[in-house]
Amino acid sequence: MLPYNIDHVAIAVADLDEAVQRFGELYGVAVQRREVVAEQGVEEAMLAIGGSHVQLLAPLAPDTPVGRFLDRRGEGLHHVAFAVFDIEAALEHLRSTGARLIDDEPRIGGGGHRIAFVHPSSFSGTLIELVEVEVDGA
Amino acid sequence: MLPYNIDHVAIAVADLDEAVQRFGELYGVAVQRREVVAEQGVEEAMLAIGGSHVQLLAPLAPDTPVGRFLDRRGEGLHHVAFAVFDIEAALEHLRSTGARLIDDEPRIGGGGHRIAFVHPSSFSGTLIELVEVEVDGA
Repeated sequence: MLPYNIDHVAIAVADLDEAVQRFGELYGVAVQRREVVAEQGVEEAMLAIGGSHVQLLAPLAPDTPVGRFLDRRGEGLHHVAFAVFDIEAALEHLRSTGARLIDDEPRIGGGGHRIAFVHPSSFSGTLIELVEVEVDGA
Repeated sequence: MLPYNIDHVAIAVADLDEAVQRFGELYGVAVQRREVVAEQGVEEAMLAIGGSHVQLLAPLAPDTPVGRFLDRRGEGLHHVAFAVFDIEAALEHLRSTGARLIDDEPRIGGGGHRIAFVHPSSFSGTLIELVEVEVDGA
């Protein structure tokens, strides 16, 4: 179950407008898509870099996963997402290795993609997201 | 100064052999290059995923930047690296925006690439590395 690509690297930020503006000043990258994902308690901005993205993530409220992350660790790298073609097969494979999954079944994430999170205890304290993509990489 | 790509996402790990093996079990990705970068006090393993890489980073000693990171925060996401074509131009641009640079001039990093780090205070607590790549992306 080779990941197809690094779909995005997510950075937790306190103020999404300010972060988008600062990232643009520093790296000249504009927002490709911006979206409230209410179920995850975040507003996210995707910034395309090559075949991948930086995702800026701001909490909708303090009592959300990203709000608690900011409270505990401050702004910074939050997770990395791998693109896969078949998310059920990927989850089944991960289960077979004893990985701890946050999502046993895929749910709908930003951009309407089917996604699932793998618990940081499964690999070196790193929160990993799987994102199902079409074969053309869309 | 648009970055060409996300060159890699780096994860700090305590035991490089163990992390390489576990990442392989979970995600089916093998090591493309493994290298001691003595000047940075690390041994690193690069694992290719699509057009980008996961870099696993283990400290050569506790009293190194990655050793201190592990002591302070534990294993986890450490930095993200953007590929650029002209690292001097990128550093000059960053300076013009008031960014704080860790490296005022490029130095040689893993794979013989010219690299420079941008201080986390410059963008949302995120350590960002620039890696100069050839136009063909090598």
